[in-house]
Amino acid sequence: MIAIDPPDEHAREQAREWSDRQAKPTGSLGRLEELASWVAACQGVCPPRSLDRVRAVVLAGDHGVSRHGVSAYPREVTAAMLSAFVEGHAGVAVLARQHGVALTVHDLGVDAELPPELAAVVGRFKINRGSRPIHRDDGLTELETQQSIDAGEAIAAAEVAAGCDLMIIGDMGIGNTTPAAALVAAGLGLPAEQVTGRGTGIDAATRVHKTELIDTALTRVGDRVTDPFQRLAALGSADLAAGVGCLIGAARAGVPVLLDGLISVAEATVAQDLAPGTIAWCRAGHRSTEPAQQLALARLGLEPLVDLGMRLGEGSGALTALPVLRSAVLLLRELALLSELGG
Amino acid sequence: MIAIDPPDEHAREQAREWSDRQAKPTGSLGRLEELASWVAACQGVCPPRSLDRVRAVVLAGDHGVSRHGVSAYPREVTAAMLSAFVEGHAGVAVLARQHGVALTVHDLGVDAELPPELAAVVGRFKINRGSRPIHRDDGLTELETQQSIDAGEAIAAAEVAAGCDLMIIGDMGIGNTTPAAALVAAGLGLPAEQVTGRGTGIDAATRVHKTELIDTALTRVGDRVTDPFQRLAALGSADLAAGVGCLIGAARAGVPVLLDGLISVAEATVAQDLAPGTIAWCRAGHRSTEPAQQLALARLGLEPLVDLGMRLGEGSGALTALPVLRSAVLLLRELALLSELGG
Repeated sequence: MIAIDPPDEHAREQAREWSDRQAKPTGSLGRLEELASWVAACQGVCPPRSLDRVRAVVLAGDHGVSRHGVSAYPREVTAAMLSAFVEGHAGVAVLARQHGVALTVHDLGVDAELPPELAAVVGRFKINRGSRPIHRDDGLTELETQQSIDAGEAIAAAEVAAGCDLMIIGDMGIGNTTPAAALVAAGLGLPAEQVTGRGTGIDAATRVHKTELIDTALTRVGDRVTDPFQRLAALGSADLAAGVGCLIGAARAGVPVLLDGLISVAEATVAQDLAPGTIAWCRAGHRSTEPAQQLALARLGLEPLVDLGMRLGEGSGALTALPVLRSAVLLLRELALLSELGG
Repeated sequence: MIAIDPPDEHAREQAREWSDRQAKPTGSLGRLEELASWVAACQGVCPPRSLDRVRAVVLAGDHGVSRHGVSAYPREVTAAMLSAFVEGHAGVAVLARQHGVALTVHDLGVDAELPPELAAVVGRFKINRGSRPIHRDDGLTELETQQSIDAGEAIAAAEVAAGCDLMIIGDMGIGNTTPAAALVAAGLGLPAEQVTGRGTGIDAATRVHKTELIDTALTRVGDRVTDPFQRLAALGSADLAAGVGCLIGAARAGVPVLLDGLISVAEATVAQDLAPGTIAWCRAGHRSTEPAQQLALARLGLEPLVDLGMRLGEGSGALTALPVLRSAVLLLRELALLSELGG
């Protein structure tokens, strides 16, 4: 457990003062003012650089629970979607193109032997072919957990090395809201009933089954979840553990992160416990329809930028919210000062 | 009173069907799906064209009430801000640059003799040097009201002629939330107390005074407000009446509009009464902090895209929300179909 250095409070304060000198009623940019000062704090400079170099990573993996009736979609969709990401036809790819965001995709735990050309692009960090079903067994071994975290840190390091003003971490994996909701329940001390949502659109009966499965998993794991590494091994998966590592890696490198939906917020709860201070480098992009996401955001003290009823995953919510954060920074940079007005 | 033709329901339905065939869980893009089908309906084609050519107009004017203690800022700021718009240092100008939006500024009723160079750019539609104080007299004569509406329609026609996929109408004028709140109160049949907000940041005592002033204006005008033209003349101003004309002109030309804060929403309430059907061509960009905006949006059946506590005006809220609408269209255009997946 290594604490993460906080953003620069001096730059944050400078940003606030600068904003109050601008040609606008004090506070009239609402939440954009706080966002801009947060970016200044993360960069340690005021005014902050504009967020030109945004990089999004999609972490893909399968989940043992997807063979146990928790999802509206078959497990095979995970692998099928990988091509759509790489070819630019998936939601997150469309949005990345719209916003000039560099998108990379990594297969951490997809249950498929990918075509060699595709594997060459996405397969460098592959850990396994899916987690084990968490209501019966730990999702990952301790070794797999550590390897996945390390992979995530390596992915973050590569993004930082490429030049990264802001990172977005998305996820793809049929069944992924089940382990993510379980991680939130375990991390926050909540019962399965409160965290279980409709995922990609399951019916009421399937949701009851999903709730029972999460409840069984939580009972199976018991007190081990007080340790965040054990919690991640017991209830997580390769893609989720890599997301945790990616978040910690970004925060340690001083790169701010815009969180997406349930998956990345669940990762953030674990990352904050493993490396306290990580959350100070994060803001919430969007509010998803998953109850566990809302509960975790409230616990983390984060308020999403947009609330559009999205539940696609992939990082799509964070990418939809990205221009708001960019606006905040540009307004702090480019709005006239009151003292310059009327010249 | 001329009714506006509605958007194309066939194209809207085609968009819904197309969306349901895309490689995503049904409904998983949340509100983006409805937005995309609305744009398709406005364009009468599915998939809709991407919203590349967005044009924003800022309508500026002074208000008689600004000499009567309703604002935190002196009347002279209106004229001073015009240069900031044209020179690109105002909030809306920063955001227009960010989003590649064409921005034009018009002086409808600014109380200043502008420098000739500036007047040449913004002064073509000037009606007067400010409205009269609405608690004592009608804001505009009937002739001024008609001239202002006509100016707004001409402004909209010029924007449409320049090529316009979406229009945004912003406003600049110290004191403008007072007539706008009065128009909302009169249009919705609400008391002054419910509609009066803090504007650019007045204190509690000033808000009490502002409420009394609006109440006096409403009492003075009485039943005349049931006629939307009389309502606009009695409580409006040149910039507000031009905004009404601009909205009607856009809707009549089949160009969708993203509304901004209180001013444009107040204009929309009048436009809808003058030209029923106008509101079908509008969506709400952002939720402002003004109570009258929220009340009017609810009455118009509009839910804003973002809610960021902004109260800058100028069209800045709509511009901040614009990328969300663009995302909606791009996702409908570019997301893979389920039938194409796994190829």
